[in-house]
Amino acid sequence: MSLSMSAASVPAITQMLTALSAILDKAAFDAEAKGIDPAELLNARLAPDMFPFVRQVTMASDHAKGMVARLSGRDIPKFDDTESTFEELKERIAKTLAFVKSVPAIAIDGSEERDISLKLTSGRTLRFTGQSYLIHFALPNFYFHVTTAYDILRHKGLEIGKRDFMGPRP
Amino acid sequence: MSLSMSAASVPAITQMLTALSAILDKAAFDAEAKGIDPAELLNARLAPDMFPFVRQVTMASDHAKGMVARLSGRDIPKFDDTESTFEELKERIAKTLAFVKSVPAIAIDGSEERDISLKLTSGRTLRFTGQSYLIHFALPNFYFHVTTAYDILRHKGLEIGKRDFMGPRP
Repeated sequence: MSLSMSAASVPAITQMLTALSAILDKAAFDAEAKGIDPAELLNARLAPDMFPFVRQVTMASDHAKGMVARLSGRDIPKFDDTESTFEELKERIAKTLAFVKSVPAIAIDGSEERDISLKLTSGRTLRFTGQSYLIHFALPNFYFHVTTAYDILRHKGLEIGKRDFMGPRP
Repeated sequence: MSLSMSAASVPAITQMLTALSAILDKAAFDAEAKGIDPAELLNARLAPDMFPFVRQVTMASDHAKGMVARLSGRDIPKFDDTESTFEELKERIAKTLAFVKSVPAIAIDGSEERDISLKLTSGRTLRFTGQSYLIHFALPNFYFHVTTAYDILRHKGLEIGKRDFMGPRP
C-alpha cells in the first residue's frame, strides 16, 4: 500500500494525542501526590510571551481537527476553549480524537491538490495545496504544540520521559 | 501527484533544519550583542535529565539523516558529535542537508513496506515497516528535537518567534 494523505495525518494525530492524554493523567496524579496546585502546571510557560500549558494542549487539538477537517473539506468543529483543568483537557482531546476518527480515510485521501486557505489571527491569508498544507504547516504546528506541552511539564519537574511523549507503539 | 515517502520526509526536514540554522545565527548574534557566553545557551536544558541545546540539535540531525538513509536503504552517515559552538552546529546541519539532498526521491519512494530495524541504545531492537517507521518514529522524534531546541532558546530569552521555527514558506 502506498502512503496516502490520511495515512500521513490521522495515525500521527492519534498516536500523539493518545500519548498526551496519558501525560495529562500523570500530571494530575503527580500534582495530587505532591500537593502541587494543578493551576501551577496548567498555567506554566517556558517564556513570558509563550502560551501556557493549557493553550499548548488546545492548540494541538486545533491543529489536529483543522488538519482533518480542511483536508476532507469539512467544517472545523468549534470548541469553546474554556478548559482549565486536566480533566477538561482530557475531554478536549477525546472530542478531538472522536472527530478525527469520524472522518473516513477516503474523504482525506486524494486531497494533495485541494485548495486550502487559512485566515491567520493577524488577518493574513495563507494559501496552500493540501499536500503543502499538511507537510509545511499542519504537521509542524501540531508537533510544535504537543512537544512544547511535554517540555513545559518536564521543565516543571514532572517525571515523564520520551516513551510518554511517543505513546504506545500503534 | 499523490503523496510519496520522499514528499512526506525530505521537504519537512529541509524546512525545519533550514529554519533551525537561521535560529542558530540569531542565537549567536544575540549572545554576542548581549555579552552572554554562548556556552550558556549551548548547554542550557529544560530539566536536569533532559539533553542540552547542543544535543537537541545533533539529535534532530541524527533523526533526519537516519530517516533518509533507512528509507532509501543507504548507510547512515556518521558524524563525530563533537559540536560545541553555534558555527559547528550550523556546519552539522549543512552536512545533514547535503546528505538529505544527495539521495534521489526515487530511492526513498516505494519504501512503505521496507523492513526497518533500529537498535536502541538500551539494546532493544525496534522493527517497523518503512511507513510505520516514518509516521510513528522518525517524524515525531525529529519534530521533538527541533521543537525542544527552539523551546530551550525561548526559555533562555532569545527573541525568536513561531515564524523562525517554521522557516520560510517553501
